Amino acid sequence: MGRCLISSSVTPSKFRQLPTSIRTFNHQTHQLSAFSCCYLGNSKPLKHGNFSRQISTKTIHISSSRYNFCTKAVLSGTQYPKVGAQSIGPIPGNQLLGVVEKAAKTGAEVVMEAVNKPRKISYKGLTDLVTETDKMSEAAILEVVKANFKDHLILGEEGGIIGDASSDYLWCIDPLDGTTNFAHGYPSFAVSVGVLFRGKPVAAAVVEFVGGAFCWNTRTFTAVAGGGAFCNGQRIQVSATDLVERSLLVTGFGYEHDDAWITNINLFKEFTDISRGVRRLGAAAVDMCHVAIGVADSYWEYRLKPWDMAAGVLIVEEAGGAVTCMDGGKFCVFDRSVIVSNGLLHSKLLERIGPATETLKEKGIDFSWWYKPENYNTDL
Amino acid sequence: MGRCLISSSVTPSKFRQLPTSIRTFNHQTHQLSAFSCCYLGNSKPLKHGNFSRQISTKTIHISSSRYNFCTKAVLSGTQYPKVGAQSIGPIPGNQLLGVVEKAAKTGAEVVMEAVNKPRKISYKGLTDLVTETDKMSEAAILEVVKANFKDHLILGEEGGIIGDASSDYLWCIDPLDGTTNFAHGYPSFAVSVGVLFRGKPVAAAVVEFVGGAFCWNTRTFTAVAGGGAFCNGQRIQVSATDLVERSLLVTGFGYEHDDAWITNINLFKEFTDISRGVRRLGAAAVDMCHVAIGVADSYWEYRLKPWDMAAGVLIVEEAGGAVTCMDGGKFCVFDRSVIVSNGLLHSKLLERIGPATETLKEKGIDFSWWYKPENYNTDL
Repeated sequence: MGRCLISSSVTPSKFRQLPTSIRTFNHQTHQLSAFSCCYLGNSKPLKHGNFSRQISTKTIHISSSRYNFCTKAVLSGTQYPKVGAQSIGPIPGNQLLGVVEKAAKTGAEVVMEAVNKPRKISYKGLTDLVTETDKMSEAAILEVVKANFKDHLILGEEGGIIGDASSDYLWCIDPLDGTTNFAHGYPSFAVSVGVLFRGKPVAAAVVEFVGGAFCWNTRTFTAVAGGGAFCNGQRIQVSATDLVERSLLVTGFGYEHDDAWITNINLFKEFTDISRGVRRLGAAAVDMCHVAIGVADSYWEYRLKPWDMAAGVLIVEEAGGAVTCMDGGKFCVFDRSVIVSNGLLHSKLLERIGPATETLKEKGIDFSWWYKPENYNTDL
Repeated sequence: MGRCLISSSVTPSKFRQLPTSIRTFNHQTHQLSAFSCCYLGNSKPLKHGNFSRQISTKTIHISSSRYNFCTKAVLSGTQYPKVGAQSIGPIPGNQLLGVVEKAAKTGAEVVMEAVNKPRKISYKGLTDLVTETDKMSEAAILEVVKANFKDHLILGEEGGIIGDASSDYLWCIDPLDGTTNFAHGYPSFAVSVGVLFRGKPVAAAVVEFVGGAFCWNTRTFTAVAGGGAFCNGQRIQVSATDLVERSLLVTGFGYEHDDAWITNINLFKEFTDISRGVRRLGAAAVDMCHVAIGVADSYWEYRLKPWDMAAGVLIVEEAGGAVTCMDGGKFCVFDRSVIVSNGLLHSKLLERIGPATETLKEKGIDFSWWYKPENYNTDL
């Protein structure tokens, strides 16, 4: 019957009718009000269900009068399709990560030098800043990558695509994630470097700038597919928050103020209403690392680019979190939206975010891949 | 005729008709589209005008066909009524600040000890956390205050009002500003201590916790009325941003989800649309210090308490910023809303925030003082 999530959202009377095998895993029931169940075999949750806590038993039987639905469900630790590469390819993980980390830290040195200096700022669009630092950071990163892997394909925020499209490796580089924050000196911002093997993230490093004037500092998040996530060399993991009303969430609003922007303003309002708060920090890679280290429980945003996401999604996943598109579907870094979470909250958040995104699709908003380099071969 | 702001919002054709004495101060006109002028003699801007740049000349003549309005305006460096005390009272400023700073740092030591430890959390309301750290920090702060000034009146977030109501000094203590962030380990949060003399802030210290796991750190903001604002002992000042479209703004949403909450969600949307971004960090005292140090250009919030604001407003004002209520009216720390800014943006932001707040008043939302200790004498 496939993998399954069992909701902890059960009315007290319904709850008492459930078999003990379910009830024993269901200690929050008195605060909850509905009951539902969903398959995750196809990775799409039912649209109108209330999906929540993962239950760590093998086989259970449940029934719900709301859905008139009965199933035998086999549970698994893997709720969502993995975004990280299954094979890390011919280059050893440690060697690859070493270069990824060196590249990100080299970019970060450029950024740190500029943090307390006056900066020249130009514009793309009304509120989109590009700084010299951005460009200098990317140049420094490219130098490290090219010195180590001459034949790899590279996609940079500033420089676009360069290198050999026949390579299995694609580097996605954001030399300064959170440019607006950087321009104002508002923490945090970051340098983000992720590398894909045949289209899937295999190694990642994000150097976050924290603190602010008089106490600027950095910390470095890293991950290799299958090898866990780390901050400053220490293993990190996502939070254990399993109720939306106890969650701290984060979102972002892009430069394009279209239907998706309005939808996310509405989601910001809805989740500010029902959670402990929705933070708006302004740096996608940083927001994802905050989910990975467990200080935020979920982050989502429309209109992102591969360089915003390639490193962050792997770090979240390797920290034990879940990653999908905002419609709940399978994610790849060429997509245009992402939601990352601690996993426990993922389907609960998608109850609102999924339908809102489906509505955008129905309006004709483009949710196809934003960009995949021509002739780049993937396993997607 | 009173003090006056002259808008830089002038159409090119109108602009060419203006006297050179105005034009020379008005270098942004080509991006702007309307013209207006307002008196600040009564500290209330005109409701429908576009108010902006302060112009540093003495006397100017202007006319606007839009308002059919002509005035001779005398300009002044002081645009808004000062919130800080004119007299700092019988205790020397340095002595008072010494105790304020010691009190805040003593509370911060308690918080720092707790930052990386598991914490016991209880609830007031659905999303309002109170931690043991909150209570222990307040106790530590009270000990410092009482050891130095036995007869002062003290208002703490946790302990309410204690001490002698006949004292001219009222301490406003937030032992842990940004409790939700603290509970989740999400930076920033703070300890905030402000002291009033006859109702007006006279000395302030905010210890901000920055960085996050693996790099927690603090920085200390201080101010004495008339003596400037400082971070870690170095003078700080607000930003020079004078256009909303180039501003980075911050706001907050309280625990009460009423009409004022909805109004501010709408303001969040409006300003996210027209500025470089609106940040939502979750700690009022921190947000105000970020305006004071110039990394954010303005912060506003409904439903604040004296302990949230007493220190922050003085630090902003002493850093060269402006402080009013959200209707644009004169502010005191017993009020229920505040907007602080770098001064240059204040009236531009009030163009939208002021009318939105007036609408709330018309609906009967209470904007009277939230609380003033009985029998406490003020110069307000």
